[in-house]
Amino acid sequence: MKVNAALAGLKVLDFSRVYAGPYCTMLLGDLGAEVIKIENRIMGDDTRAFYPIKNGESGYFNYLNRSKKSLTLDLKSEKGKAIALELAKWADIVVENFSPGTIGRLGLGYEDIKKVNLEIIYVSISGFGQTGPYRNKAAYDGVAQAMGGMTYMTGLPDGPPVKAGPAISDAATGVHAAMGILAAQYYKNQTGKGQYIDIALMDTVFSILENSVSIHTLLGLDPLRIGNANPSSAPYNMYKSKDSYIVIATANDSLFSRLCKVMDQEELITEPFFNTNPNRKTNQAEIDAIVNEWTQQYTSKELEKMLDDVGVPVASVKTIAELAQDPHIQHREMLVTHYNPNVGCVRYPGNPLKLSETPADTSRRAPLLGEHSTEILASKLHLSVQDIEKLREENVI
Amino acid sequence: MKVNAALAGLKVLDFSRVYAGPYCTMLLGDLGAEVIKIENRIMGDDTRAFYPIKNGESGYFNYLNRSKKSLTLDLKSEKGKAIALELAKWADIVVENFSPGTIGRLGLGYEDIKKVNLEIIYVSISGFGQTGPYRNKAAYDGVAQAMGGMTYMTGLPDGPPVKAGPAISDAATGVHAAMGILAAQYYKNQTGKGQYIDIALMDTVFSILENSVSIHTLLGLDPLRIGNANPSSAPYNMYKSKDSYIVIATANDSLFSRLCKVMDQEELITEPFFNTNPNRKTNQAEIDAIVNEWTQQYTSKELEKMLDDVGVPVASVKTIAELAQDPHIQHREMLVTHYNPNVGCVRYPGNPLKLSETPADTSRRAPLLGEHSTEILASKLHLSVQDIEKLREENVI
Repeated sequence: MKVNAALAGLKVLDFSRVYAGPYCTMLLGDLGAEVIKIENRIMGDDTRAFYPIKNGESGYFNYLNRSKKSLTLDLKSEKGKAIALELAKWADIVVENFSPGTIGRLGLGYEDIKKVNLEIIYVSISGFGQTGPYRNKAAYDGVAQAMGGMTYMTGLPDGPPVKAGPAISDAATGVHAAMGILAAQYYKNQTGKGQYIDIALMDTVFSILENSVSIHTLLGLDPLRIGNANPSSAPYNMYKSKDSYIVIATANDSLFSRLCKVMDQEELITEPFFNTNPNRKTNQAEIDAIVNEWTQQYTSKELEKMLDDVGVPVASVKTIAELAQDPHIQHREMLVTHYNPNVGCVRYPGNPLKLSETPADTSRRAPLLGEHSTEILASKLHLSVQDIEKLREENVI
Repeated sequence: MKVNAALAGLKVLDFSRVYAGPYCTMLLGDLGAEVIKIENRIMGDDTRAFYPIKNGESGYFNYLNRSKKSLTLDLKSEKGKAIALELAKWADIVVENFSPGTIGRLGLGYEDIKKVNLEIIYVSISGFGQTGPYRNKAAYDGVAQAMGGMTYMTGLPDGPPVKAGPAISDAATGVHAAMGILAAQYYKNQTGKGQYIDIALMDTVFSILENSVSIHTLLGLDPLRIGNANPSSAPYNMYKSKDSYIVIATANDSLFSRLCKVMDQEELITEPFFNTNPNRKTNQAEIDAIVNEWTQQYTSKELEKMLDDVGVPVASVKTIAELAQDPHIQHREMLVTHYNPNVGCVRYPGNPLKLSETPADTSRRAPLLGEHSTEILASKLHLSVQDIEKLREENVI
């Protein structure tokens, strides 16, 4: 059976590198858009050299660049720029995440592309956006998380602020950008008009702080880090198990009685210090200590089973190694295997969008550097083999 | 000048509550989709009672539900269900995030809706998805972060795992869902076909772990928490300032020399322990201690200025109160003011998508409970004032 692709026919010219832009275009590519990734002809995307690396292949790069074709191009050469402009005529969408101003200096900014393709949807992703006082600040994820409020809100109450471990400002911005692109494409389908989209890591981080901002703007308070605890319920925290940690989320009285029964401490249900959620929250240290003493007698796996069985919300703190073997991750097809000639078969995270009619196609591994240069120049720009060889000799591709 | 909306004409019937679904439909509403939010007629969306609250208005709810209309409906009554089905005929898209199976038992699952609207795009958001061994686990953000690997990767190396403070599994899943909806809508524009989308918090978390998964799948290692440090560069960490904390990201030798000059310790540039990035990483504790001693002499603001001036990547760990006054946040229109009759003017985070031709419209505050019930039933279902009054008396709306 032929499987349909949601975004079949959508054409993306991708100048982006590292994380936010590549995550955006991977999501589009998985759903069927044709993505041509332009890479520096010497080293390619910076992440081709990012940890982890084996036999010269980076796991960082190979996860984030599946479903794309790679064309190497020296954008500083006249011929390279001319090829990029020709491809911009072909494209529906351009994505870039250089620091603000850089791509304009290469002659490939929105105004330049619009001259050759009036209907283009052009997306610039950056740390702080194309405008505003911080626009020229260096844009690392750790910087964006700190500047956007995520770091301040993460960590234990008695410890320093800590950023979310993985670079979530990049991933979150990438998927917001993909959503913005498809909204702009919806508009273009109705009106024929393209447009420019400016999206910033700091803005995105600031918009995913849950209730943190409104605690300040509504009540005038400065919200504080609460680690793994919950602002209104207890016992609702992370506890030590015999072998690791366990999250137990006792959000109401009914769940608390079930927990007490499993702990074989039913007397706590009616104990005046703990008999209501507000009382337990007031005496959080005490009830957390009782739960913590109990959890340390069992492994995380044992605790998870005991509490799952009675419907008390519980989670092992899964390690990455555990997740790689996790039956649910497997069932959800959240690990996909790619064969790469240099490292053989390696598994990478799959696509979280499960569409019934047009499932994401995560089968196409990330390209080798310039793997599709010849194919793209021949099929999109109708260059001859001789023309392409000449470009190669001239170090354009 | 009339401002255009990217998603003008797109019709969304929204059964979702709490965070992931409402964030998804807010993004769609901001860009011009018409969103009808169905709420329980007694209490409405659970988050109407979530912290922070002032004069009965929740900042949690009011941030996440702008750009929507509220219709109260008793979905367990026959008449309420009939109204929901009529609205499903009107809609292009249905969004729900009950626990798996719940909305099907109400007679409003995908199969039910498809009978009255074959082309519907129907999105179910849940903690673990509609299928798989964990599908019935309770879906709190803290549970999803722990089960998906984010918690394991977050926190200081010598401390316990910590979840990202705000509920990022919800926000990330919400925006992925919005992206999936618009991809399905693109397909529907081409083919006329609708479909079902199943998206899970755990899957989404697992897909935004940066290189964590491939460290394991490519190298066989279990990646570890590194707090605010960087796996390959030093000094690249969070340091104490006189008044707070500061992030300094010295990613290469050139940035390190600039940092040394600002610290007035130029001798470190050629010091054999620190003269290359690998050497500094090997002696990270020593170089971090030197930087930390220097940073404690200045306020975060002073440090940020000194290092910005010479182009060394730096970030204050902004508090929420600071961000509420931040000139860049203001310039980027990332705080928007809503007037609500019960609490007056309150500011909430804006929309991070800056589209030139169809800017997000963030001006429409979240609705009061059932604020648009009459309007929706009259305009969409052509009910008379008497019919609507009767529904109200019968506790259907």
